[in-house]
Amino acid sequence: MFDAPFTFSIPLPLPIPSRQDNHIRRRLSSLKGQFLDTAEYKRMLAEEDRLVYEVYEIRRPKVAGELLSGISIVHPGKVGSEFFMTKGHFHTVLDTPEVYYILKGEGFMVMETPEGEACVEPLLPNRVLYVPPRWAHRSVCTSRQDDLVTFFVYPGNAGHDYGTIEEQGFRKLVVDSGGRIEIIDNPRWKK
Amino acid sequence: MFDAPFTFSIPLPLPIPSRQDNHIRRRLSSLKGQFLDTAEYKRMLAEEDRLVYEVYEIRRPKVAGELLSGISIVHPGKVGSEFFMTKGHFHTVLDTPEVYYILKGEGFMVMETPEGEACVEPLLPNRVLYVPPRWAHRSVCTSRQDDLVTFFVYPGNAGHDYGTIEEQGFRKLVVDSGGRIEIIDNPRWKK
Repeated sequence: MFDAPFTFSIPLPLPIPSRQDNHIRRRLSSLKGQFLDTAEYKRMLAEEDRLVYEVYEIRRPKVAGELLSGISIVHPGKVGSEFFMTKGHFHTVLDTPEVYYILKGEGFMVMETPEGEACVEPLLPNRVLYVPPRWAHRSVCTSRQDDLVTFFVYPGNAGHDYGTIEEQGFRKLVVDSGGRIEIIDNPRWKK
Repeated sequence: MFDAPFTFSIPLPLPIPSRQDNHIRRRLSSLKGQFLDTAEYKRMLAEEDRLVYEVYEIRRPKVAGELLSGISIVHPGKVGSEFFMTKGHFHTVLDTPEVYYILKGEGFMVMETPEGEACVEPLLPNRVLYVPPRWAHRSVCTSRQDDLVTFFVYPGNAGHDYGTIEEQGFRKLVVDSGGRIEIIDNPRWKK
């Protein structure tokens, strides 16, 4: 009955879906090289390999005529002044988009194209974000106490290219500047 | 800047999105032949061509590498014992799916394949429904007072085939049976 319609619930405020085909947990160690303050990153990692974000994936065939969806949960935290965030990625099939519906929390989506355009959009509950084809995207949780919880949908054939971002980073960073959230240029961004 | 990322809000409990590229209003007259009680349909229509449902579409290119999304609002009401519902459709590109996130209200999604399989799934807030490729789908609002409000996402190339359903109807109907919601076989369904 793989192809029968199905429903599942997201019992907010608890963001854990009633159907879970795959549960991904990303810890500090998997974000090596991504945070600006490398000394503070090392110090924190030596203390505890903290859970930074989780993804619950709903499994469907990874082909163009399907949609992959799931729940993304970015936990609150900072490395130095930089907020906790996802690894971020391009889609392997670059010309595919993604749609986000924000369920809970506060944050930003940091985005950029291979051509070097950058865009940072605020994420708030009951908002929809459209990430057009070609835009790499990374979620950042800026709330001090609450998780940033989003529901995402993208084409089944999109795939994930993490390598490009691991190497060059994003052009923009979201940081806490003495209690104010600031979006700054990444001094280490390389093209 | 057509291809820049964008966000819009759905300021619930008001379901009207802050971005509206296209607003579709479907009235009783556009559902001719779909309700079982044709005498009551005629009587109601002579009295007033009531608004049955509305769709706010977010415009994107209608190609495979894009996603179309929007808000569907089915108003409460009945024609005889049958609840207000959408026209319902197959996708023109049959092998494309649709994902619904239910924002508000109560109802059902009535679905069927060209091969004659039928499925009716309950819709409740904070639930996700996956409509796999090949399944025609129709939303039904069973609340007496509240709109059924859903956020939908489907591939840009899917298209809508309304004709097949207009001709043969759905196999299942959702009706009020003395205060209880019942799912019954459609006596007029033809294949």
